[in-house]
Amino acid sequence: MDLRAVFAPIPTPFDRDQQLDLGRLGAACARWAASPLGGLVVLGSTGEAALLDDDDADRVIAFTRDRWPAGRPFIVGTGRESTTATIRATRRAAALGADAVLVRTPGFYKAQMTADAFVRHYTAVADDAAVPVLLYNFTAVTGVNLPPAAVSKLSSHPNIVGVKESSGDIAQMTDLVAGTPDDFSVLAGSATTFYASLCVGATGGILALACVLPDACVRLFELTRSGQHAQAAALQHRLVPVAKLVGTLHGVPGLKAALQLTGCDAGLPRSPLAPVSEAAMASLREALVSFEEVALV
Amino acid sequence: MDLRAVFAPIPTPFDRDQQLDLGRLGAACARWAASPLGGLVVLGSTGEAALLDDDDADRVIAFTRDRWPAGRPFIVGTGRESTTATIRATRRAAALGADAVLVRTPGFYKAQMTADAFVRHYTAVADDAAVPVLLYNFTAVTGVNLPPAAVSKLSSHPNIVGVKESSGDIAQMTDLVAGTPDDFSVLAGSATTFYASLCVGATGGILALACVLPDACVRLFELTRSGQHAQAAALQHRLVPVAKLVGTLHGVPGLKAALQLTGCDAGLPRSPLAPVSEAAMASLREALVSFEEVALV
Amino acid sequence: MDLRAVFAPIPTPFDRDQQLDLGRLGAACARWAASPLGGLVVLGSTGEAALLDDDDADRVIAFTRDRWPAGRPFIVGTGRESTTATIRATRRAAALGADAVLVRTPGFYKAQMTADAFVRHYTAVADDAAVPVLLYNFTAVTGVNLPPAAVSKLSSHPNIVGVKESSGDIAQMTDLVAGTPDDFSVLAGSATTFYASLCVGATGGILALACVLPDACVRLFELTRSGQHAQAAALQHRLVPVAKLVGTLHGVPGLKAALQLTGCDAGLPRSPLAPVSEAAMASLREALVSFEEVALV
Amino acid sequence: MDLRAVFAPIPTPFDRDQQLDLGRLGAACARWAASPLGGLVVLGSTGEAALLDDDDADRVIAFTRDRWPAGRPFIVGTGRESTTATIRATRRAAALGADAVLVRTPGFYKAQMTADAFVRHYTAVADDAAVPVLLYNFTAVTGVNLPPAAVSKLSSHPNIVGVKESSGDIAQMTDLVAGTPDDFSVLAGSATTFYASLCVGATGGILALACVLPDACVRLFELTRSGQHAQAAALQHRLVPVAKLVGTLHGVPGLKAALQLTGCDAGLPRSPLAPVSEAAMASLREALVSFEEVALV
Repeated sequence: MDLRAVFAPIPTPFDRDQQLDLGRLGAACARWAASPLGGLVVLGSTGEAALLDDDDADRVIAFTRDRWPAGRPFIVGTGRESTTATIRATRRAAALGADAVLVRTPGFYKAQMTADAFVRHYTAVADDAAVPVLLYNFTAVTGVNLPPAAVSKLSSHPNIVGVKESSGDIAQMTDLVAGTPDDFSVLAGSATTFYASLCVGATGGILALACVLPDACVRLFELTRSGQHAQAAALQHRLVPVAKLVGTLHGVPGLKAALQLTGCDAGLPRSPLAPVSEAAMASLREALVSFEEVALV
Repeated sequence: MDLRAVFAPIPTPFDRDQQLDLGRLGAACARWAASPLGGLVVLGSTGEAALLDDDDADRVIAFTRDRWPAGRPFIVGTGRESTTATIRATRRAAALGADAVLVRTPGFYKAQMTADAFVRHYTAVADDAAVPVLLYNFTAVTGVNLPPAAVSKLSSHPNIVGVKESSGDIAQMTDLVAGTPDDFSVLAGSATTFYASLCVGATGGILALACVLPDACVRLFELTRSGQHAQAAALQHRLVPVAKLVGTLHGVPGLKAALQLTGCDAGLPRSPLAPVSEAAMASLREALVSFEEVALV
Repeated sequence: MDLRAVFAPIPTPFDRDQQLDLGRLGAACARWAASPLGGLVVLGSTGEAALLDDDDADRVIAFTRDRWPAGRPFIVGTGRESTTATIRATRRAAALGADAVLVRTPGFYKAQMTADAFVRHYTAVADDAAVPVLLYNFTAVTGVNLPPAAVSKLSSHPNIVGVKESSGDIAQMTDLVAGTPDDFSVLAGSATTFYASLCVGATGGILALACVLPDACVRLFELTRSGQHAQAAALQHRLVPVAKLVGTLHGVPGLKAALQLTGCDAGLPRSPLAPVSEAAMASLREALVSFEEVALV
Repeated sequence: MDLRAVFAPIPTPFDRDQQLDLGRLGAACARWAASPLGGLVVLGSTGEAALLDDDDADRVIAFTRDRWPAGRPFIVGTGRESTTATIRATRRAAALGADAVLVRTPGFYKAQMTADAFVRHYTAVADDAAVPVLLYNFTAVTGVNLPPAAVSKLSSHPNIVGVKESSGDIAQMTDLVAGTPDDFSVLAGSATTFYASLCVGATGGILALACVLPDACVRLFELTRSGQHAQAAALQHRLVPVAKLVGTLHGVPGLKAALQLTGCDAGLPRSPLAPVSEAAMASLREALVSFEEVALV
């Protein structure tokens, strides 16, 4: 399984009644399959996994697995707050065809989430998992940080194959690369610093932006890998405005709005998330037009 | 239903296999029922609700409801990240005998959790709920703040009867009291500032400390209500060291350890939580001995 | 010297050329001298001390000392980033007639400002000072916290007589009171939590709000001291809106604007501070009108 | 003046009596002059400028200017909290031979330090300055952030020639490069992310690490400029451990200790700063030994 690639962490479409909308999901999957994306992640933060119950989650996994070409990695987010719930979700994902699982840190009991607690949690999950495990650190959402020293320790586990780091903190990214073996995947989760992450040794990315602009994200990856740094840096600069709008600024609703503008209907967000305002929609349209490489509907 | 009282947000006991331990829960309930506590909260943050699945949660509700005297409020935590999941959990809790529900704010998608999002979320939950709803703000855990202006707006909903504020921020507590009707309950969630909260108008408290020291917490409440401020302030000062250890410092594992020291076996925490260290246990023992009013085993 | 009182930390007036405006300072002093204020603080944060050079500072001290009645404490802010500069400023203040000095923590080299560093710094300052020293913790401005354990240690120094705590954190205020001798002054610096601070044992306050509403601030203090808690809590609630506007929200420019509205011309702020906007001025006017007890010009 | 270079922000030596130690400063300057450093910065954060009075500052400027070769930029830190004090310090520095000044943001009155306030402040300083002005953003120390939009606006001022950004936030660095003209200097202030900063377009660096390891820092700069990315990334990884110890972890005292270990006596820090502990000294020694390229005494 080649994780040296750009992955799209896809959103989960809902209809006007807040129900799963598998029809829209199918159409969107066809589009991503036709793109140069290295692989797909379902049920990540971008997939509103925190807003789904287990039955919905299983339906999303099974449905998407069927529509995604074998040979390109299909990764499923299975992080839960408790270790046992994470293990159970990982078992179901493996049974439904996941090639690997992406496990975000628990974060509810922040003061108790020490490096030791993370090592115990991930070791238990990886010991049980039938597929490879990717660690996942997303401090802005969880309020806790998975320290590079803990990742370094966990990287020697035979069933832990990589980490997704979403902070955009390049010093920490540098530490992750330095503290793990060469065949351990370090995947960037922040599109605004994707090029810099690759420079310091990240091996790929899982980028919400790649749902909207898969060709450009893959091109940025390839330019950097082939040493065309000037072109890579220039492309990164051009991608930043869109990356911000579908990232920190408008989050999942911003991503769904941007997809809609490009003709890919990813449905509505689930409450308490709500569709973006008219003003946000206008700024998304403007940023996409300025980027020039994508046709709007 | 009288919410002008001190409530204990009880922990959920687990056995050595990480399973629910209803036997231990039953014994502990008998102890709390024999105390002067005004009421009980199950499945709050202290109840490790974030680490339970729905079946476990239902078992805890039904089991505890049976063992708690009618006439003293029995409150169930039903907050989930999605609005629909919160509504479903609230329905189950009401069906199982909850007198009211305590609904913590969603907090995963922090940047999108605006005052408007909170108002929509809580309005939908309260519109559907068969029992009264208490709002719940716990910034240290959720990473978001429920602004007093949103609470003020929600306080006019006929089915929203109060708020639990756990920040210990007395300026915000003052704003909550000032911005809500006199019959709206404002319950303190931080034991280190319980007396000050009552001074500025809080109507009661839901305090982890009250699981360990129910008599002292109720006495602090009564001293303040009857205007014996000097004695109340002195008691608050004496309670602070224990309150810190079972609060921020050692959290749920600290609370379970303190209960064990006082002869009330509340079982083990569920992973990724782990029992406290020997050093923490020693500091808990010392603080309880210094408080003098409780017999240790 | 009686520090069980309400002090006004007065602003420093500047004219349109950014120069010290002693004329306006004199008129304002007459007004404060005619009020029931327990004492005056010059060259605190509110006094824009950080924007003054030493010559200006000396002129402010000498001028105000002359206009302030002996017998009511006259306190001078002398905190600097280096220990030697703080000692020199303290010597000058003592020579110019200060009854005590208020020394905010250094905060530039945040990572190095440990409890030990604070103890060394304040001990050196107090050893040299010819007048009593008050510690001063203002985390929102300095970015560092003076821990209660350090204050406790310093409270045994014969020349350190108290602390001003401006965080509004009532748990920390409680710790300060519990950790220091009964004759050690613990002065609140946050007007929105002044009543709660007094409840948990603060012995007085140094409040920017007291520059604008000295009578009301002193009344709140006296009501609490005489055990009239209901009236005190009610007055605190009414003071909050004005306190916020001249505190966190609009800072020193807000305070100068509020003074101007009440007929006390405290001049302009010094750049980079700038006068408040028209909108801020309108909200200040509205809050003062709502408070009802003060005549506007 | 060529700012496309690596600059050392040199420390200010003090003797055992806390006095300026110009003898030690002279010896150290000779060492830096013999290195490939592009230029020198005196009286920055690393120079303990916040702990010096104006007379000391002037002596440091004059003394160092004399010992630093013309033709290699000599930059002086002149940031103060007030606009007028900053202007006065800038005049003195220019008169004493500064080639440019580095002006950190004021930060005491945080809530009032809006983008507009920064634009007004820097415009006033640059309008008056006889030498070019560099903006300086160091959020970890000042507690305020100079937003890229403000830098973009200020970059059109004919006398503002660059910015030093010390946050290590590569997304912000990218924004600074994108929002300013090509001939505007964007200088990195964080050594742990120096290579990544150069990748996204930074034009050079002002690095405390460059005081200790000038050759290696200049080599990292040249490797990146000449497109030897693999070697540059590898060198960056090797530099991180030392960079952390003389940066965030031990600050100015750490830098002085590291210099001492390499045979360059930069004296003692001034109180409230204190020399590093034995344990810190040992970790510095170990990191320098591991780096291999520097001889220890």
